[in-house]
Amino acid sequence: MLHFAQFGAGRIGAIHAHSLATSGRGTLRHVIDVNQAAAQALAERHGARVSTTQAALADPEVGAVIIASSTDTHAGLIIAAAQAGKAIFCEKPIDLSLPRVDECLAAVAKAGVPMLVGFNRRFDPDFAELHRRIEAGAIGAVEQVVITSRDPGPPPVSYIKVSGGLFRDMTIHDFDMARWMLGEEPVEVFATGSNLVDPEIGAAGDIDSAMVVLKTASGRLATINNSRRASYGYDQRVEVHGSLGRLIAGNRVGSTVEQADAQAVMTEKPLHFFLERYAQAYRIEMQAFIEAVTQGSPMPVGAADGRQALVLADAALRSMAEGRVVRL
Amino acid sequence: MLHFAQFGAGRIGAIHAHSLATSGRGTLRHVIDVNQAAAQALAERHGARVSTTQAALADPEVGAVIIASSTDTHAGLIIAAAQAGKAIFCEKPIDLSLPRVDECLAAVAKAGVPMLVGFNRRFDPDFAELHRRIEAGAIGAVEQVVITSRDPGPPPVSYIKVSGGLFRDMTIHDFDMARWMLGEEPVEVFATGSNLVDPEIGAAGDIDSAMVVLKTASGRLATINNSRRASYGYDQRVEVHGSLGRLIAGNRVGSTVEQADAQAVMTEKPLHFFLERYAQAYRIEMQAFIEAVTQGSPMPVGAADGRQALVLADAALRSMAEGRVVRL
Amino acid sequence: MLHFAQFGAGRIGAIHAHSLATSGRGTLRHVIDVNQAAAQALAERHGARVSTTQAALADPEVGAVIIASSTDTHAGLIIAAAQAGKAIFCEKPIDLSLPRVDECLAAVAKAGVPMLVGFNRRFDPDFAELHRRIEAGAIGAVEQVVITSRDPGPPPVSYIKVSGGLFRDMTIHDFDMARWMLGEEPVEVFATGSNLVDPEIGAAGDIDSAMVVLKTASGRLATINNSRRASYGYDQRVEVHGSLGRLIAGNRVGSTVEQADAQAVMTEKPLHFFLERYAQAYRIEMQAFIEAVTQGSPMPVGAADGRQALVLADAALRSMAEGRVVRL
Amino acid sequence: MLHFAQFGAGRIGAIHAHSLATSGRGTLRHVIDVNQAAAQALAERHGARVSTTQAALADPEVGAVIIASSTDTHAGLIIAAAQAGKAIFCEKPIDLSLPRVDECLAAVAKAGVPMLVGFNRRFDPDFAELHRRIEAGAIGAVEQVVITSRDPGPPPVSYIKVSGGLFRDMTIHDFDMARWMLGEEPVEVFATGSNLVDPEIGAAGDIDSAMVVLKTASGRLATINNSRRASYGYDQRVEVHGSLGRLIAGNRVGSTVEQADAQAVMTEKPLHFFLERYAQAYRIEMQAFIEAVTQGSPMPVGAADGRQALVLADAALRSMAEGRVVRL
Repeated sequence: MLHFAQFGAGRIGAIHAHSLATSGRGTLRHVIDVNQAAAQALAERHGARVSTTQAALADPEVGAVIIASSTDTHAGLIIAAAQAGKAIFCEKPIDLSLPRVDECLAAVAKAGVPMLVGFNRRFDPDFAELHRRIEAGAIGAVEQVVITSRDPGPPPVSYIKVSGGLFRDMTIHDFDMARWMLGEEPVEVFATGSNLVDPEIGAAGDIDSAMVVLKTASGRLATINNSRRASYGYDQRVEVHGSLGRLIAGNRVGSTVEQADAQAVMTEKPLHFFLERYAQAYRIEMQAFIEAVTQGSPMPVGAADGRQALVLADAALRSMAEGRVVRL
Repeated sequence: MLHFAQFGAGRIGAIHAHSLATSGRGTLRHVIDVNQAAAQALAERHGARVSTTQAALADPEVGAVIIASSTDTHAGLIIAAAQAGKAIFCEKPIDLSLPRVDECLAAVAKAGVPMLVGFNRRFDPDFAELHRRIEAGAIGAVEQVVITSRDPGPPPVSYIKVSGGLFRDMTIHDFDMARWMLGEEPVEVFATGSNLVDPEIGAAGDIDSAMVVLKTASGRLATINNSRRASYGYDQRVEVHGSLGRLIAGNRVGSTVEQADAQAVMTEKPLHFFLERYAQAYRIEMQAFIEAVTQGSPMPVGAADGRQALVLADAALRSMAEGRVVRL
Repeated sequence: MLHFAQFGAGRIGAIHAHSLATSGRGTLRHVIDVNQAAAQALAERHGARVSTTQAALADPEVGAVIIASSTDTHAGLIIAAAQAGKAIFCEKPIDLSLPRVDECLAAVAKAGVPMLVGFNRRFDPDFAELHRRIEAGAIGAVEQVVITSRDPGPPPVSYIKVSGGLFRDMTIHDFDMARWMLGEEPVEVFATGSNLVDPEIGAAGDIDSAMVVLKTASGRLATINNSRRASYGYDQRVEVHGSLGRLIAGNRVGSTVEQADAQAVMTEKPLHFFLERYAQAYRIEMQAFIEAVTQGSPMPVGAADGRQALVLADAALRSMAEGRVVRL
Repeated sequence: MLHFAQFGAGRIGAIHAHSLATSGRGTLRHVIDVNQAAAQALAERHGARVSTTQAALADPEVGAVIIASSTDTHAGLIIAAAQAGKAIFCEKPIDLSLPRVDECLAAVAKAGVPMLVGFNRRFDPDFAELHRRIEAGAIGAVEQVVITSRDPGPPPVSYIKVSGGLFRDMTIHDFDMARWMLGEEPVEVFATGSNLVDPEIGAAGDIDSAMVVLKTASGRLATINNSRRASYGYDQRVEVHGSLGRLIAGNRVGSTVEQADAQAVMTEKPLHFFLERYAQAYRIEMQAFIEAVTQGSPMPVGAADGRQALVLADAALRSMAEGRVVRL
């Protein structure tokens, strides 16, 4: 039984606390949030206590922390938790600034604590199965990766303003997915984008539609298409082409029911958004974290992965600004 | 919080105990099984105690029982639980003998206790969604129902011998599904069958392959095809034709991954068997039972449904023996 | 180059004449129809002449006849063509009366002329591919066949009245398909039906909705579901279960376009009716006929097949009337 | 009836001659090819005569020419045919050199003859249906286009050497498709590529794997992924995202048969290559050409389209060489 302190009692925090509760292998002891009411509610639901950062990190029973607070608090908490010798489960991103990320990685390395960065899609059963088949040689050598990643609708502009922009906020998941599926590190990044969905997003200096091309040293290629709007639901697909074939992982639907009438043959739209689509992934992610901490086995997606996705996001921003390939 | 006693600690019992535990609305207090070790293991897992029928039914804290023991014990337990005033969740079938079923229904009616019969497929999200659409008028008036219900492989002959035969053991689920989807009571039954899968099943006097046709008073038709073997996995599909269109609920798969190579385009086989396919259904079924008991609302699938499915199974047996339609 | 006389210049006649023209291996010389204008139009389109039965059958250049006139003329033309030594391509059914069919078969046998009966579905590329795989052992021994055969809408009642009824007019195709897929002759027939689609059909003494179960001597089972109405288009599917797996041949659509919006994910309805769905089948059927005639090879679907499908249709009628299995 | 002269009697020439023959609205009179045997064979098959360029263009009965000879002869023949006042059906590309293309366009404009450039995919029923739905507003304003275009296997290196390279030879079709689906002219081009499939292609100075991103003035985005190898068959898909939804046109298969066994559920691979996939498109293309010539209506895909696709291909080459966006 691993004992946890959790920072952040919002929507994503609630998910992680629930995953922990149903894992049967961890318990929540401390909940810390600037919103005391939220902290209180979550703590009560899971038999934990509302706490402070200091108290939580000082508790010798606490073996691990979940960092699900606002992005600007991640780095400070990572460093403090590392210094306290706690295993770290941190929501993406580590930080929006690469130097600050490097400080985090240094602290984690120095403390020798295990750290998972919350790229939840790696734990999606469909993407994981696709990746297993690549590893098993089902399609030979990987040559090209095509990632479709489209949100059902744009977030409020207030969120956009603190998000770090589309590449650091949304595409960052796809950069991680591309790295994972390519099996090699991208060394060239091209990105471009447009403001097609919501003029307010453009007014805030961000884009809402993007296309990215990545290339590895051996010439493997990946492309990502993003949009902040998909009226038919959350569109999350990965397609990998190899020397011997093709693998596709598609969307999940709420039911298999197909309806045919005088107009058309209709099936259900994809599950609405990440809470629905990645419900299983979140549970598996927590299990994998606890497994790695308790077994001392390698973390399936670690601090270096969090850093590398940010490197790609920053390169994408530069590529878009300069209209050229950025070489890493 | 509803407190439970559970009879039967085998495979299906473990599922119901787990559904109860994760429902958050009920607790298991007594576990009764002739196999003491199984009872002990299940009781420990859920913080219950190994008990006797008498002790369990005498416990005033116990509001409901789960009957998941062997079929020949169902009727006795139903009658005893009814007399003790407990709400009853009983695995199908109520009993293999119609007169005995009627004794159970009389006892339940006299005691005025709520009773659910475990036709788990009614709680399958896909079949439930299909049924909701029929009710919502999506395909107009129902005209024909086609049910495909095929097990991945035959059970041991020892099971066959006490099963009551294919119609009472396996098709009984499909009879219930047909009644539910037709929206009218069948008044004519035709059935036929063969021994194609396993000669030992034939030697035991049973069939392993069957086709059934049902007809309601207004002329609605249903057909069922059954087999004890489907090498590609558990095949559970329902297709309903109405005056305005068609609804189909298909199989569920483990992942959406599609693999294309020089041979073919391949997707996954259907989920292996009922434990996988109906995992969600079992959880929803328990929730629905607790909901109906605690709210005093009508039971979604009750004792009369359990009886009527057996009436159809018995008619199917007679139809096959006599080579003619049996009118009810 | 095989020279043809054709009886019947209506809708189905036009299709066969067109198949002949595009085969590149036959020419149409005589067209005979009681409707002189129709005969004239078809003859002109294909460089043939309007003719009489006598003249056409007396023409020594004519090697084959196409019989696509009204059902009541088939038998007389078959006998006359056989006596004249012509190869015979006859639309289904041979006749609605079994004794009369037997007279035709006797005449054909005596003359030793090749004869094809127009069960066009045997030439549908999807059904043919499914059958090839059965033959190749892809699913082991055949155990069960499920045939879905539903017209987009009912014909006029005037047609119903001379059609011989649903089993002889519509199901007859499915009886042939069942025989072909079962790989064994059915020895038991059960059929039932209802009048659900159009009360006028019931008033004319026919049914518009049917379900049939067939059984062979070794116990293989087939079921057919029919309706005169499918608002979503012509529904023609075959599903075969064997000891090693399952084969399904589905409907064809006009385009692969899939549209997703805020309501649903929509694909096209099946092709509207037999002219669209079996367009390819008709062309392949004519090719197969010419091939068999010119090579002297066995006819892929012959007079005995035409007879046997009628035997099953007659048995179905008797089964429905008597509410019992009819043994052949 | 439009009379034709055809240059080129090879594989693609045979297709166009066949489309002409089955159109019922044109006849082939002259066949010209440096390979006399091929010319002879094609001429005989279609009742035409082997001829010379001069004789063919001097024939006042000839109203149109089909140019299906090797790429290096296209421009000369276009100019000569234009000067002779013939309508022109020219296989893509017009020429590999943009100045030479401009000479062709000038000659065509001066002569005022209609000209179609053989972008056959515009006539594919699936892509055409998708485009019709865009025009009908089914998905609102177009935002992003994703084109998958992958050949089953690489051509011989001898072909690669005269092909003008992947972008001018293969991607040129996709550039045309992107322009058509975007509904706006791309003003920015980014392209990159690799040599992953066949080292000999790399040795010949070409790539065999590519990714392209296009952007229009209003910010619409398109991406193309290409490979010279897809072991599962010719992969030709188009996906268009708009403000209200998504449209996808997929691959066509030889049959709808689905096979399920202990390993997987298998459907057929996509049709092997362009001759199979675009068989219908070629016939419709010829019909559309004859229609436009005889009606004097606008050519569905004309000389300017041929030029613009080459402009994009040239820009892609420059983009790849310079690692930057090329602005048009």
